[in-house]
Order: sequence, then C-alpha cells, then structure tokens
Amino acid sequence: MITVYAAHSVPFDGKGLVRDFRVIWALEELGLPYTFHWMNAGKGEHKVDPHRSINPFGKIPSLTDGEVKLFESGAIIHYLYEKAGKLPTDPVAKTVVLQWMFLALNTIEMPLLEMLRWDVFWSDRPGRELQMPELIEATKVRLADLDRTLGAKPYLLGDTFGPADILMTTVLGFGRNQPVVFEDVPAVRAYLERCKARPAYKAAWAKHLSGPDAKAA
Amino acid sequence: MITVYAAHSVPFDGKGLVRDFRVIWALEELGLPYTFHWMNAGKGEHKVDPHRSINPFGKIPSLTDGEVKLFESGAIIHYLYEKAGKLPTDPVAKTVVLQWMFLALNTIEMPLLEMLRWDVFWSDRPGRELQMPELIEATKVRLADLDRTLGAKPYLLGDTFGPADILMTTVLGFGRNQPVVFEDVPAVRAYLERCKARPAYKAAWAKHLSGPDAKAA
Repeated sequence: MITVYAAHSVPFDGKGLVRDFRVIWALEELGLPYTFHWMNAGKGEHKVDPHRSINPFGKIPSLTDGEVKLFESGAIIHYLYEKAGKLPTDPVAKTVVLQWMFLALNTIEMPLLEMLRWDVFWSDRPGRELQMPELIEATKVRLADLDRTLGAKPYLLGDTFGPADILMTTVLGFGRNQPVVFEDVPAVRAYLERCKARPAYKAAWAKHLSGPDAKAA
Repeated sequence: MITVYAAHSVPFDGKGLVRDFRVIWALEELGLPYTFHWMNAGKGEHKVDPHRSINPFGKIPSLTDGEVKLFESGAIIHYLYEKAGKLPTDPVAKTVVLQWMFLALNTIEMPLLEMLRWDVFWSDRPGRELQMPELIEATKVRLADLDRTLGAKPYLLGDTFGPADILMTTVLGFGRNQPVVFEDVPAVRAYLERCKARPAYKAAWAKHLSGPDAKAA
C-alpha cells in the first residue's frame, strides 16, 4: 500500500504550496489506492522519525510503497506515473518528460520561489526594494518563454497531461502574491486554468486542506 | 553525432559553474563521441538561433543527437547515461537515481546558488548582511544531512558513480566563495575530492576552459 507522508499545521499560509500536494494530485490523477501519514509541521514532526528515516533531509513530502522509500516530489510523482504505466515507453520521449520536470523544478522555480520568500518571510527586510523588481523581471522573461513554447498546446507535452504539468502548475503557484508576472502571458494563464480545472486537482486540494481528516482514495 | 551547445566568454568567472560542464563531464565519463557548438555567452549567442530553436528558454547547455534535441542539464545527462546503458534497469533503482538528481538540483542547489549570487553579483547590495548568514546556516543544515547520508559511501548511490554525482559535485561547487559551509562535513569534502579526482572530470575541465579550442572526444 502506498503511504504519503503529508503535512498539516504548516506555520505559514502554505495552501497548495507545500509539496505534498503534488503527490496527492498525482495519486488522484492515477487512481492509485493510498493512505496518509499526516505530520504536524508546526511541531516539526517532518524533521524527526519516523519521517527522517524515509527522508534523511527531513523535507516534505515522502512516500512509501511496501519496501520502497522515496523523497523529492519530482522523483515521487515520476515513480507513480511509471507504476501506473502512464509514462512513454520510448526512451527519448521519456527523457523529454524529464526535461520539462527539471525545467519546472529548477529554471522556472528559482525566481518564483524567491519572490514568494521575500513576500512571505521578508516583507520588511532591507534589500527587498532592489531584489523584488529584478525577480519579477527574471520571472517575466521565463514566463514569456514558457508562453511562446506552450502556444496552443493544452499541456507541456502536447495533448496528454502528465507529471511535468503537476510540477509546473504548482511551481507557478509560487507566484500567487505577484500577479503582475502573469499579465502578459495568456497561454500560461489558460494553461493554469486548464490544469486546475481537472477533477483530480480539486479532489487533491480538498484532501490537502482537510489534513488529518482527509480520507485517502 | 552528439553535439553539445557550450558557452565561452561568460561575462563573470564561470569556471566550472556554467552547466555545460556537467554535460561534458558525463560525455567524458561515458566515452561517447561528441562535438562542440561553442557560443559566445558575452555576446548572448545562447539566447538566439540556432540555440534558441533547441532550447526555447535560451539557457546553457543544450544537446542534439541526430533528431533528438534536449535542454536542462539534468535531463541531458540522464539521457546520456541511458544511451550508454549505464542506468539501472530496475524501475525502482532508476527512480532512486532520479531522486538524488532532483535533490541536487532543487533542495541542495537553492541556498548554494543564492549565496553565490550574493557574492558574485550583489556583494555591495543592502540586505546582504541579513541574507548571507541565513543562507550559510541553511546550507550547513542541508550539507550536514548530506554528510550523514553519505557516511562511508564513495558515491551517492553507493559504489557506482553516476549522473547524480555529476549534478551534486557541480551544485556543491556553487559554494566555492563560502568555504565555511564545508567546515563540518568531512564526508562531503572527501566525496568532492573523490569525484573531482576522476580522470573524466579533469578531461572535461580542460575542455571546458579551452572553449572553442577544445577538441571533443
């Protein structure tokens, strides 16, 4: 049985931002049976055992599946899509999926997450007036590239929704406090609406919010 | 034939930091034949065609292999190891490789790259006196976890060097201006020395530095 190690009582407004949401979303998309192990993040339960023995870095989320223990949201959702037989079998096509996953978690995430941190944790800190405009500009450049690349495609890889879309949607969610970055990218906005309209997204969102009261699939 | 799109004339001291180095290192490890397409980064050649038609985000590096076009260093070196038959065939073991690759490029990279940017680009900028000590502390926490996890293992996955080690070594290289982060992590220091002593690392380094004069394998 699959167990998701997920967090509740996060000590900031972490709705949709905490990365366990990505795993729940993937599980709901794939219809795999699973159960939760909820951790009180406010009390630091993710930093100690039993979670630490699964993820030596004490970060959220982790997953167990029988003898399998995994951490890093990107690796976990790749594993789940593979388990469900929903990844391409052709090695090149499979690498292209990875390419978009790495793009989301590195090239795209970096300026967005930094903007979020200046807004959530450092709103009064000196230097923000210099950092923030540069971060907004860097994000806009990347999102303009993403917008051109998406064009009329429904999803990153074309017609088929997949793990890269889960990562990209949630990474773009880090920009929620700076809506200006989405002003000039209509294809990105339409893409986000399309992804968030999926029934599995909504089901995952409800479970993510309800914490220890959530029932797994 | 494999072509690496690599950069020379980078407008800062980018030795070993620019991510094309990772791809060259992987190619040298694997003994795959390849050629270079060098781009003058100071003139922004990576941001325009022909490179832009391979990487729509205009970032370094990219790779072509016949009809295959790839960007994101993580995806590229995964592709090369797969092509060379040097990844595990068991799906779970393969996912564990990905887990460590994602760890390097996201969890570990973030504070290290931010430290580097404060040192290289923003050394006189207000706010540094608050950000830097926090970044150093965050990096030390992650590296202490990495140190414990490495223990006596020669490489991240055990006895076999692989793509996760290329990413981790180069990501840890982002900490070069703040040696204090490596003071209390002897296993990490030994690991870095071990990886950098590999003949393929040294061969890649020489080609990385020699720019358009480099001869590919």
